[in-house]
Amino acid sequence: MRTRIHRIAAASPDDTDGLNKAIQEGNINAAHVIAVLGKTEGNGCVNDFTRAFSTQTLTRLFADELGCSTAEVTERIAFVMSGGTEGGLCPHWLVFEVDETPDSEASDLPGLAAGIAFTRNFAPEELGRTEQIKETAKAVNAAMKRAGIASVEDVHYVQIKCPLLTAARVSDACKRGKTVVTSDTYRSMGYSRGASALGVALALNEVNLTQLSDESVCRQFDLYSTRASTSAGIELLRNEILVLGNAAGWDPTFRIGHDVMEDALDAEALDRALERVPVRERSLGVEDIAALLVKAEPASSGKIRGQRHVMWDDSDIHPTRHARALVGGVLAGRLKETRLFVSGGAEHQGPDGGGPLAVIVRNLRGSAIKASQKAVPSKS
Amino acid sequence: MRTRIHRIAAASPDDTDGLNKAIQEGNINAAHVIAVLGKTEGNGCVNDFTRAFSTQTLTRLFADELGCSTAEVTERIAFVMSGGTEGGLCPHWLVFEVDETPDSEASDLPGLAAGIAFTRNFAPEELGRTEQIKETAKAVNAAMKRAGIASVEDVHYVQIKCPLLTAARVSDACKRGKTVVTSDTYRSMGYSRGASALGVALALNEVNLTQLSDESVCRQFDLYSTRASTSAGIELLRNEILVLGNAAGWDPTFRIGHDVMEDALDAEALDRALERVPVRERSLGVEDIAALLVKAEPASSGKIRGQRHVMWDDSDIHPTRHARALVGGVLAGRLKETRLFVSGGAEHQGPDGGGPLAVIVRNLRGSAIKASQKAVPSKS
Amino acid sequence: MRTRIHRIAAASPDDTDGLNKAIQEGNINAAHVIAVLGKTEGNGCVNDFTRAFSTQTLTRLFADELGCSTAEVTERIAFVMSGGTEGGLCPHWLVFEVDETPDSEASDLPGLAAGIAFTRNFAPEELGRTEQIKETAKAVNAAMKRAGIASVEDVHYVQIKCPLLTAARVSDACKRGKTVVTSDTYRSMGYSRGASALGVALALNEVNLTQLSDESVCRQFDLYSTRASTSAGIELLRNEILVLGNAAGWDPTFRIGHDVMEDALDAEALDRALERVPVRERSLGVEDIAALLVKAEPASSGKIRGQRHVMWDDSDIHPTRHARALVGGVLAGRLKETRLFVSGGAEHQGPDGGGPLAVIVRNLRGSAIKASQKAVPSKS
Amino acid sequence: MRTRIHRIAAASPDDTDGLNKAIQEGNINAAHVIAVLGKTEGNGCVNDFTRAFSTQTLTRLFADELGCSTAEVTERIAFVMSGGTEGGLCPHWLVFEVDETPDSEASDLPGLAAGIAFTRNFAPEELGRTEQIKETAKAVNAAMKRAGIASVEDVHYVQIKCPLLTAARVSDACKRGKTVVTSDTYRSMGYSRGASALGVALALNEVNLTQLSDESVCRQFDLYSTRASTSAGIELLRNEILVLGNAAGWDPTFRIGHDVMEDALDAEALDRALERVPVRERSLGVEDIAALLVKAEPASSGKIRGQRHVMWDDSDIHPTRHARALVGGVLAGRLKETRLFVSGGAEHQGPDGGGPLAVIVRNLRGSAIKASQKAVPSKS
Repeated sequence: MRTRIHRIAAASPDDTDGLNKAIQEGNINAAHVIAVLGKTEGNGCVNDFTRAFSTQTLTRLFADELGCSTAEVTERIAFVMSGGTEGGLCPHWLVFEVDETPDSEASDLPGLAAGIAFTRNFAPEELGRTEQIKETAKAVNAAMKRAGIASVEDVHYVQIKCPLLTAARVSDACKRGKTVVTSDTYRSMGYSRGASALGVALALNEVNLTQLSDESVCRQFDLYSTRASTSAGIELLRNEILVLGNAAGWDPTFRIGHDVMEDALDAEALDRALERVPVRERSLGVEDIAALLVKAEPASSGKIRGQRHVMWDDSDIHPTRHARALVGGVLAGRLKETRLFVSGGAEHQGPDGGGPLAVIVRNLRGSAIKASQKAVPSKS
Repeated sequence: MRTRIHRIAAASPDDTDGLNKAIQEGNINAAHVIAVLGKTEGNGCVNDFTRAFSTQTLTRLFADELGCSTAEVTERIAFVMSGGTEGGLCPHWLVFEVDETPDSEASDLPGLAAGIAFTRNFAPEELGRTEQIKETAKAVNAAMKRAGIASVEDVHYVQIKCPLLTAARVSDACKRGKTVVTSDTYRSMGYSRGASALGVALALNEVNLTQLSDESVCRQFDLYSTRASTSAGIELLRNEILVLGNAAGWDPTFRIGHDVMEDALDAEALDRALERVPVRERSLGVEDIAALLVKAEPASSGKIRGQRHVMWDDSDIHPTRHARALVGGVLAGRLKETRLFVSGGAEHQGPDGGGPLAVIVRNLRGSAIKASQKAVPSKS
Repeated sequence: MRTRIHRIAAASPDDTDGLNKAIQEGNINAAHVIAVLGKTEGNGCVNDFTRAFSTQTLTRLFADELGCSTAEVTERIAFVMSGGTEGGLCPHWLVFEVDETPDSEASDLPGLAAGIAFTRNFAPEELGRTEQIKETAKAVNAAMKRAGIASVEDVHYVQIKCPLLTAARVSDACKRGKTVVTSDTYRSMGYSRGASALGVALALNEVNLTQLSDESVCRQFDLYSTRASTSAGIELLRNEILVLGNAAGWDPTFRIGHDVMEDALDAEALDRALERVPVRERSLGVEDIAALLVKAEPASSGKIRGQRHVMWDDSDIHPTRHARALVGGVLAGRLKETRLFVSGGAEHQGPDGGGPLAVIVRNLRGSAIKASQKAVPSKS
Repeated sequence: MRTRIHRIAAASPDDTDGLNKAIQEGNINAAHVIAVLGKTEGNGCVNDFTRAFSTQTLTRLFADELGCSTAEVTERIAFVMSGGTEGGLCPHWLVFEVDETPDSEASDLPGLAAGIAFTRNFAPEELGRTEQIKETAKAVNAAMKRAGIASVEDVHYVQIKCPLLTAARVSDACKRGKTVVTSDTYRSMGYSRGASALGVALALNEVNLTQLSDESVCRQFDLYSTRASTSAGIELLRNEILVLGNAAGWDPTFRIGHDVMEDALDAEALDRALERVPVRERSLGVEDIAALLVKAEPASSGKIRGQRHVMWDDSDIHPTRHARALVGGVLAGRLKETRLFVSGGAEHQGPDGGGPLAVIVRNLRGSAIKASQKAVPSKS
């Protein structure tokens, strides 16, 4: 079994040239694709339609490619678009391909394992509250099972796309006599991301159910997951979940590790995450990184290492946009690469002002598979 | 003789608490101050009034402190406010103090030398054109002379604050039958910065007069200075110039070096700049840095190391804002410090997509002065 | 023959519920649709992907409805999305349906006539220059012919969707040794809109060819059309043209008139436009208006009726966004209706600071058709 | 006794040319000025420093003019700067001059009466809560008394400038173990405006104390004042209040009336407000209007007269900015004048989506004073 990822730059939210080419040339088998994570170039906030535009475009491409309906595509592939490529970030897609054919020759190293799951659609009044937490935890467990990851210790990254409240959805709840967690659409994104992250923390035993209530969300920030990355969008009503970890029986060409950025300047989290990738010999470097996934947010203290930042006080550029630009710069300066999946809004995802960071390496050193079994070179 | 710099964070454009305290406690002698460089928290574009607000506030503070008129303050101190603290940058001021009392004991190391000069006021039709270039070059030479820097090789940084065109100034020129370089006020900032930078390049023999014409400005980008940093603001009509270099006879506690960021990810320019600071033994590190001054701009190719950036295509956030956020992140990630003077709009300042970078170190190792002669600890 | 228009609000750029319902209920015959004009809720500038998202969504809807390919849809329907619903404007679509079946009973009043045409794709170096002007004029004439409008006097509105330059397109031209009119992507929108409007002016004898050169575009603003409305978007490479006028032989239920707003406050243009709609008795009022189409732009003088406006000096909100908000407010305050097609960027479209305004009325009074022949009530 | 107002356009937040000229020419007596209301050209949100910049500039001007300290100026003149001149609005100041010399000849018409008062400074934890409501009510009563307005019926407008929370102020409260109403700085502006408006409603008997609690603020929107206009700014810690009404014994050259815009398109509120201005004969028209003051906000329903608006869902431009642009357009289109005091954020000020509107007329018709006693022509 093997999970492969392909990192493909996009010239616009509907630019499928790179993906199409990879499919036509046989580098990607459309039937194996289980998830596409994307950084799109909108504002990453409420009225960022680049996410839905990308999703619509990709869904159609896969429907045409697979000869099925778009509804079927939606059930087999998780599309998780995260808006915002501030600073120097490059809009791009990470395509996750899973081939479940067992390898004839087992490796003694675990390999990258991936699985997806979806919750049911949420009612507006459930967003940012306990219902969303519990349903998310259930779906994380389901995705782990599909990926064949037995222990929560082996989960290194859980990506979730979750809904937000719009004026229309708020109004719908009100008409039915229900309250919503907030009527501020922008803030609803934070609540939905926060509840989803707590769902991951619950599933991974980072918090337990007795600690959680409706009041926990976006208030008790000492409760958090070190592996959740959640992103809200207007284009869906359910949570879509992608779990990544290392597991035996999977081709170890791709492997994953994670750590937590303690604050926005903690570039060293990258080194610590690399150290947690299973290896036979210690030899991984930034040149082995095939994908970097990280959460960014402004410190609520208004300070970074004792010095003031203006992110919260700027009413022209949203705090999440500043934070992505900053963390994108910190990591791109280190990696010399701008195709980084830097996602804003890290409520209950890592400590205040920091966030989880995961690296996926593509590296054959220390792998048991023979050269003849090497994966087809990916776009990355 | 000694030049000292103080790095003081600001809670708002008119926050003088830190500066006031330093003066009251005797750390800063107001009568010695020749320049204040500031990062203020506006958008750094046309309607950024935080620059003028800071300048007005500081001018008044020094007038009260020195017991003179604000007009006199304006003639003795250059206030160079650069707007924009995107990402994690911290609004702050760099206060330059010069004490021209000769040291009794000479050092064999050169020390930080600083001098200021002003051009005459420019007419709107002169901005972004040859007149601005030539007048600027003259003033750079005058500032060098005041600083006692004999050779252009010893100049490591030239900071210029220059005017921009507003709708009213354009209209004024038109009424007098004159043309302006552009009637787009935002673009006029680039022309003014560009012509000012070419003035520095001319003064420092980086280009010669035969290469220059009105047509050069913002067109021939292969003509540039490696040491100019120019910043445009609505609040002045002349160019204000601060020249920094190393020269014999100056206290070497503070010294300066520079290099050029080849692109926005070139964090290594920092190391190269440190290597150019005069030392007796090779021992400088990022911990010695008292101030970092750098220019940022988006690559005109639309790419960074082969990957697309969205800075030019984003109509919500100006390209200069993206670029400051990015370069600020790259360097703050390296230095673990956000009080960096990152200035946007690097026309004719370093290569396309990059920019000059200067470091001022505060370091007694390798200095001939005795411990008893140590400078009063600065705020930085 | 009859032209009917339907005004349908949209909850998002991909909200087809209203349109779908109108088709399912028989109010709209998809096979008769020749054009859809839309106000979408993006920024209306370079990175406004709501336009392309709407276009992609609508194209697919009509392909499904008509049982043809999306390529075929693109050849039979002009989709002209104009971004920007600032202030109180409501995102909406204006669907133009043409039924060419001759009426058995002729009316003595002319009725609304509509025709579309497309130019060839433009190369980046042609945008904003004479080639774009001439090709546009040819296509306007072609569209008039299709609409059966014989005299240019009877043309009251010409809507054009035109391309813009992106960093990639500029780079493409440069590689082929060509120059582009500007390398600033935002400004390229103005050049493309301007050249397209001059193409309309040329076709309608408002200017003549000897007056025009590459230098005219966005410089000689005394050359303009009183009936052009042009809008630039990233999603196309050719000009798409919709011509509207009154002509004999068309059902007079819908009729059109136009005038010019002399400046942003000239709400009275609405009354003057109404007076130019053909009637049998003088009885039209704002309650008869089925659609309002108007251009908005900031006066280049920086003033409105002698008082300063800040649109040009604001670097946070683009001038076109301010202008749409203003003109939208002026007209919505008069009409008590926010579903107005207010489009920004009026280069060569009406006088400086003003713009063409067209009203389409839906009114049976003064019409010769009998009650039994009344059009199916439209969504508007 | 007479109150006069002067409407003076500003070229920038620190442009005092017009005001200076009026003082030098004797049109304004600086010693009589009790308040300056200003529209400044910032974003009107948290980081809008144009308000403080104007205030600092004007305070200094009056200190120089009156030969007193800036602290004294602050105690005698209320400076109420409201940021945001979106759309076509013109930055300007309304200078209120009060001459308390009794008129020898009484008029049978009441005239414009004005009075100011200040609350004590508020602690961060008091903002947006009952304390702010009660203190404000007390200060409104004090200002009425100073203006000689006996009945609350004769109050037509109460302008308040109130503080907001910054990250630093929130942190200060937290350190002292206090909670704040919100830690979102932008939202704190709404709470402060809302509590201040409820203070006016309380003082004017529009609500009573038993209806009010901490929970009322920004929740019970059916509680509101029809005459409050409140504006939040970073530059002060107390509420500053200006009460305007008509009272006997005041020169009737200037008089005031008010009504409520029921929604953003309700331009007719202008006519209704004019009808409420005391007159001897019914003859007032828009040409008599010397100043217009109005509040704007987006309807919380997300709709205007049944059609969707995007103000709440736009994360690039704040809702208050959209709303000012819209209402500014609606009223400027009617008045043909852009120097309108349109202030955003109408929490508890008029009904949801609407806001109080006051007109000050300058009109001698129907006044008992003789031509020889005519006021010096104002700048307006």
